Amino acid sequence: MAKVLVINGPNLNMLGIREPGVYGKTTLPEINATISRRAAELGVAVEFYQSNSEGALIDRIHAGSGEVDVIILNPGAYTHTSYALRDAITAVGIPTIEVHLSNIHAREPFRDRSVISPVVSGIIAGLGPRGYLLALEAASTLISH
Amino acid sequence: MAKVLVINGPNLNMLGIREPGVYGKTTLPEINATISRRAAELGVAVEFYQSNSEGALIDRIHAGSGEVDVIILNPGAYTHTSYALRDAITAVGIPTIEVHLSNIHAREPFRDRSVISPVVSGIIAGLGPRGYLLALEAASTLISH
Amino acid sequence: MAKVLVINGPNLNMLGIREPGVYGKTTLPEINATISRRAAELGVAVEFYQSNSEGALIDRIHAGSGEVDVIILNPGAYTHTSYALRDAITAVGIPTIEVHLSNIHAREPFRDRSVISPVVSGIIAGLGPRGYLLALEAASTLISH
Amino acid sequence: MAKVLVINGPNLNMLGIREPGVYGKTTLPEINATISRRAAELGVAVEFYQSNSEGALIDRIHAGSGEVDVIILNPGAYTHTSYALRDAITAVGIPTIEVHLSNIHAREPFRDRSVISPVVSGIIAGLGPRGYLLALEAASTLISH
Amino acid sequence: MAKVLVINGPNLNMLGIREPGVYGKTTLPEINATISRRAAELGVAVEFYQSNSEGALIDRIHAGSGEVDVIILNPGAYTHTSYALRDAITAVGIPTIEVHLSNIHAREPFRDRSVISPVVSGIIAGLGPRGYLLALEAASTLISH
Amino acid sequence: MAKVLVINGPNLNMLGIREPGVYGKTTLPEINATISRRAAELGVAVEFYQSNSEGALIDRIHAGSGEVDVIILNPGAYTHTSYALRDAITAVGIPTIEVHLSNIHAREPFRDRSVISPVVSGIIAGLGPRGYLLALEAASTLISH
Amino acid sequence: MAKVLVINGPNLNMLGIREPGVYGKTTLPEINATISRRAAELGVAVEFYQSNSEGALIDRIHAGSGEVDVIILNPGAYTHTSYALRDAITAVGIPTIEVHLSNIHAREPFRDRSVISPVVSGIIAGLGPRGYLLALEAASTLISH
Amino acid sequence: MAKVLVINGPNLNMLGIREPGVYGKTTLPEINATISRRAAELGVAVEFYQSNSEGALIDRIHAGSGEVDVIILNPGAYTHTSYALRDAITAVGIPTIEVHLSNIHAREPFRDRSVISPVVSGIIAGLGPRGYLLALEAASTLISH
Amino acid sequence: MAKVLVINGPNLNMLGIREPGVYGKTTLPEINATISRRAAELGVAVEFYQSNSEGALIDRIHAGSGEVDVIILNPGAYTHTSYALRDAITAVGIPTIEVHLSNIHAREPFRDRSVISPVVSGIIAGLGPRGYLLALEAASTLISH
Amino acid sequence: MAKVLVINGPNLNMLGIREPGVYGKTTLPEINATISRRAAELGVAVEFYQSNSEGALIDRIHAGSGEVDVIILNPGAYTHTSYALRDAITAVGIPTIEVHLSNIHAREPFRDRSVISPVVSGIIAGLGPRGYLLALEAASTLISH
Amino acid sequence: MAKVLVINGPNLNMLGIREPGVYGKTTLPEINATISRRAAELGVAVEFYQSNSEGALIDRIHAGSGEVDVIILNPGAYTHTSYALRDAITAVGIPTIEVHLSNIHAREPFRDRSVISPVVSGIIAGLGPRGYLLALEAASTLISH
Amino acid sequence: MAKVLVINGPNLNMLGIREPGVYGKTTLPEINATISRRAAELGVAVEFYQSNSEGALIDRIHAGSGEVDVIILNPGAYTHTSYALRDAITAVGIPTIEVHLSNIHAREPFRDRSVISPVVSGIIAGLGPRGYLLALEAASTLISH
Repeated sequence: MAKVLVINGPNLNMLGIREPGVYGKTTLPEINATISRRAAELGVAVEFYQSNSEGALIDRIHAGSGEVDVIILNPGAYTHTSYALRDAITAVGIPTIEVHLSNIHAREPFRDRSVISPVVSGIIAGLGPRGYLLALEAASTLISH
Repeated sequence: MAKVLVINGPNLNMLGIREPGVYGKTTLPEINATISRRAAELGVAVEFYQSNSEGALIDRIHAGSGEVDVIILNPGAYTHTSYALRDAITAVGIPTIEVHLSNIHAREPFRDRSVISPVVSGIIAGLGPRGYLLALEAASTLISH
Repeated sequence: MAKVLVINGPNLNMLGIREPGVYGKTTLPEINATISRRAAELGVAVEFYQSNSEGALIDRIHAGSGEVDVIILNPGAYTHTSYALRDAITAVGIPTIEVHLSNIHAREPFRDRSVISPVVSGIIAGLGPRGYLLALEAASTLISH
Repeated sequence: MAKVLVINGPNLNMLGIREPGVYGKTTLPEINATISRRAAELGVAVEFYQSNSEGALIDRIHAGSGEVDVIILNPGAYTHTSYALRDAITAVGIPTIEVHLSNIHAREPFRDRSVISPVVSGIIAGLGPRGYLLALEAASTLISH
Repeated sequence: MAKVLVINGPNLNMLGIREPGVYGKTTLPEINATISRRAAELGVAVEFYQSNSEGALIDRIHAGSGEVDVIILNPGAYTHTSYALRDAITAVGIPTIEVHLSNIHAREPFRDRSVISPVVSGIIAGLGPRGYLLALEAASTLISH
Repeated sequence: MAKVLVINGPNLNMLGIREPGVYGKTTLPEINATISRRAAELGVAVEFYQSNSEGALIDRIHAGSGEVDVIILNPGAYTHTSYALRDAITAVGIPTIEVHLSNIHAREPFRDRSVISPVVSGIIAGLGPRGYLLALEAASTLISH
Repeated sequence: MAKVLVINGPNLNMLGIREPGVYGKTTLPEINATISRRAAELGVAVEFYQSNSEGALIDRIHAGSGEVDVIILNPGAYTHTSYALRDAITAVGIPTIEVHLSNIHAREPFRDRSVISPVVSGIIAGLGPRGYLLALEAASTLISH
Repeated sequence: MAKVLVINGPNLNMLGIREPGVYGKTTLPEINATISRRAAELGVAVEFYQSNSEGALIDRIHAGSGEVDVIILNPGAYTHTSYALRDAITAVGIPTIEVHLSNIHAREPFRDRSVISPVVSGIIAGLGPRGYLLALEAASTLISH
Repeated sequence: MAKVLVINGPNLNMLGIREPGVYGKTTLPEINATISRRAAELGVAVEFYQSNSEGALIDRIHAGSGEVDVIILNPGAYTHTSYALRDAITAVGIPTIEVHLSNIHAREPFRDRSVISPVVSGIIAGLGPRGYLLALEAASTLISH
Repeated sequence: MAKVLVINGPNLNMLGIREPGVYGKTTLPEINATISRRAAELGVAVEFYQSNSEGALIDRIHAGSGEVDVIILNPGAYTHTSYALRDAITAVGIPTIEVHLSNIHAREPFRDRSVISPVVSGIIAGLGPRGYLLALEAASTLISH
Repeated sequence: MAKVLVINGPNLNMLGIREPGVYGKTTLPEINATISRRAAELGVAVEFYQSNSEGALIDRIHAGSGEVDVIILNPGAYTHTSYALRDAITAVGIPTIEVHLSNIHAREPFRDRSVISPVVSGIIAGLGPRGYLLALEAASTLISH
Repeated sequence: MAKVLVINGPNLNMLGIREPGVYGKTTLPEINATISRRAAELGVAVEFYQSNSEGALIDRIHAGSGEVDVIILNPGAYTHTSYALRDAITAVGIPTIEVHLSNIHAREPFRDRSVISPVVSGIIAGLGPRGYLLALEAASTLISH
């Protein structure tokens, strides 16, 4: 059975708790539950990981090497600075889809640029928690190819 | 019945004919046929428009005012320069999802930035023709809300 | 009788219909009617043209060569990028007054700069539809000199 | 009776005396006389102030607080650097129209940008002494609203 | 018989009519006539197209796909901004020679950079109408190879 | 009893041990002892945390949510790059005072800019260990309001 | 008795009168009265000076040479441009603490940078009128050392 | 008898009093005395003016119009920002020699650029008080031509 | 016996496993074994540390204070952003040699700049695993001095 | 008989020997032979010079003063930096045509800009050795005018 | 007897021959003769050197080590790019005065910046051939100190 | 026998004579003698070349084509500007190791960037004369592969 690893970066554990005006009212466990249900329908195994630590995120990506078929990654604020995370994606060579809940291009200037995007397969942004589900659809297509 | 307008900008009429290494072998009519089938399943009416003219694209967006519920827009190379297209989206106030076939962040530096993105609801890039279908899914969610 | 050509660029056909908070509630035909009345008082012939197409705007400026004494031009979003429009003004050599309804320097950074301004006779910005009337006053002065 | 304060910044006391090729042959007292005549016709009281001192210009703007309905301001070379002047306009909250005799966008690069513009109601540039009269027209409209 | 398509962009229809100091006194039909004579000598078929519309220029390039052996292109002011025109050249894969009448590097700073140049076979600039003839020579060499 | 959390970022555990010329001879425990004494006088509970790990600092800020009234934060070198730390402050919504021992504007250029500052309540820099005490005074004022 | 000179720059005479949303409702005389009371408690003499003129501010700083132990300076909008004010501080060699009422890093981009900061002893920003009192505390520490 | 006006800008009244390491131990009156002696030898009348106020410096330059043959100007820190001072020089049309005591290109980056230099006849920098004497020599040459 | 600490940053644990085209086929343990052998010959004790966590790398550098004579550091992608790592090197004051396996100046633009380099003793780049051995030679020279 | 001087700059003596993928297989003597043949047909005298030394190239250009009618110049890598070469062209006032074998705009970013171009009569780039022949044609036209 | 070395860089051998509008009609030998006369009066030995070669200029500066007391250097266009020339001045440690005939700040933007200036004792620009004489005066002062 | 060519650029002939604080007290002949001894041990032939002329350095690199196995190059100040030197390395295709005595990243900003580095095999900087020996070790490894 194909496996998808869903990774959320810094501060995404606070989803639904703070700043609902920007990020909505849904918590990360609720989003993950929805993803799990859809993954079951698509016949895809799914694992979840969240950390506020750049190093721990890299460790988890490395651990996926040879185990995981697609990574769905919301790098949080590391999106804009973490070349280390970018190199981790390149190092393991696992197709990755970058997801952002909000439209990062409609906020502060520093959020306009992702240093991760040049090495991912696809990017989905601004579509809220639904973005993870669309990424899962795309992931299942990538796997079946 | 909710209506989605799918607009493709300059050079996308050449899809599948030239540069298959970058854009794939599928032609625009073939993509549109796939979109139509999926729209029928979702119970959404869908219209298609392609033009190489910035002015004609703006005219078509204006014509959608009061007629169309969601726009799916691949602005082609106007992505990087057309503030006029951006203003057209703002002027009609129709929720818009921006789609790019290739990962615009993994190509020439000028493609890294979209002047359209700050005014759209969501962005989907790098996932090939499948990106339009994911945008359609997102559109149907936007409409039903 | 001296002739003034009033040209409006992209999205200005949507005036009064959308975004009244930024651009006011008056429609373009209403503005043009007010201009016509004042032109009659000043003894100046006035013609109107609006297009969303950069090429069509250039064609219209060329057509004014030898026919028109002053151009009043609101280039819309082409203000910020269209060197072609700028060259058209230089090519015909007709004195041109640039008008903007809103204060372009008090909005998004990209609106702060006009590539058209270096080749016009004068600029009027931020004074709403009244800006066209002031431009007409200035035009009639330019003509009588 | 509504009151308009016309403020001219550094070096504008030299108008008509030096550099007539750029600024014309009319002196500042002559311009002010013309403004006074037109103000009388419009039923508007008008006061004049010129100084080469940034601090004195700010003092005069402050003094207008609660006394003046509209300021017409030609900030001279302070246009390009004086955030203090800009803050003075914001502090008194009096609607201000920025006037430039020459087309500042058609001269040296440093003149292309006004740090004052983002806080004014309107800008008129490149139309010579006539620009003050157009600003007066606009001011009388602002007052009557 | 090999075919060369000569395309001229915005404002080049005004050649010889306005600004002879910059662009010379020869009109575009006169230039085209000279090109035709030389093409006949070289045994090359030649077609001409001029438009002020970016979209129309792209349409014409697309139409040349499979019909035309070399394009000679003077993109006018679109030289400096039109990524869409650039993509059109890449899309049809026809060898293209970029021509500029004036030395674009000796004028305003914005003219110093061509977004078209990175995708063309060669560039000829500053040599006046003779530049088209040199491009034709180069084109006939490209074709015979 | 109101609670203040004092967080020190990377390398601040080395205070007083190395580079006394820049940072003084006082160690972090000594500084914390002084803060504790003053907090007791002010009737404010105070907790201390130091880590070299960006992720651990974010975890600690999250843990303060609902527990802590004011954060006093010296982000060390993360000041200049950590959008993740910035987002953590926004996420918990706790008023934060940013403290720097040295005058960051009088050292290497990269230290001149703080990505944290735009989201804090106040900034105190260059006043040595005394800066923490001033921040505590300010914190107690913020709390009592 | 040690002496502290409190200098306020342009527009700070308008405190409490205009823009209370940004700067609060307290007037400058009220702030100064609070400072005087606290100075009396600390056994420090305090003098006040406010001017909108850059030159007058420099004159006042020079006059403090040999008379004043610490300067507390809110340079207003001169913060962002006045190298002359900066040189005045260096010229007299009096320890100076820079104070800003609002968080200058959370407002317009031009306010993000202080040309004064590199030559002062400390900076306190964003803490409202309380910032002056904290600066006074810091000043009394600097003096007693 | 030809007349030379020697103008010194902000903080130059502090010469010899503070920062002798950068500016030397000679006071401004001592420098002026030396200039006077040399002027007498050269048969040139010389006047001196110093102010810390940008506006006062401009006023003095204006007052020299028609009276003064050459200005020797050390603009102090206004060198780097004062377009108003620059315009004053252009307005009066008096040949001006810019003098700096220290080598402004060997200090902080902001001192590297003079906005005054583009409008002066000559620049002398880094040669200490002797620079004024060299400027006087140059001035007497300019006058005798 | 002198001690050298060899620290490898993020993703270097993946050496030899992934991207051999860029980084070669040798694994990190193999490189370390070679270093150990050479260190034995040189009579130098050597310790190894690798982590993907910026904080852990800083902790390890701090722990070396007073224990380690030279650090050989390959900061991986933290090379380009980690001012915290840079400060750690300065804080402990241990001579450090920066090593990069690949030529960082011949790859993506972001790799061209190291924020670590300004505080190290030497830099060796582009020479593959041999670079560590050369650094060890250099380290033994530094120690014996 | 009119005379054309063909100058080749640094590394062009290596043509045809190294990097044939970029610069082709033809050697510089072979190119020069072809130019000589065509020059004979056109009745133009031609001389050749190549040097890797900037100074020697300048010397040769100076020596052409009063002797040479047109210079054909391929400045090699000096294209991008040599203001001295540029000044040499201006100093002798001989019409110059700049030639590049490859399309300098389609290679590394530093090659995109020529500091020579602003002072030449024309530029021909990307057309291989044929570019010299086209330049010769253009030169003979310039001479006959 | 003290010795001054006067070095002129690229294209200055063409002085008086070409571009008299910018550089005057005096030839370099004529300037040197005037310098010699004045040097004799001042009791200073003077030598002259001119070369178009950067390397030869550096060689000549090195040769002056231990022989020459002051260098007067007009680096021509190497002013703007030659860090090698700058290093040569630092290497020999001879006080150097930089001279420019024209006002380099009033011409093309690239001439505005000298990479030489940060290491020289003084700069004299815009005063024509007289600049060398003023430099000689300054040199004799430097020597006698 | 394999051959290594050691090339030193501008001002390196002054090593040990001037600025020992930056570059040490060892002269270039002394360094070369040490290199020769080590080369003899390694069984590698070594040649030395130093010039202050960019053109002569390029000539020497060309002369090494087909004769030399590895170049060790310290480009001196040409490091930061010489694209011609860079092209020479590419033209001959000889593996090159770039050496800098000092840490170029810890000095003036202009030294931070090498235009040579992108085309060399390896870079060694900041390790003094020992850097040449390490480069020789690396060279002998490159040769034996």
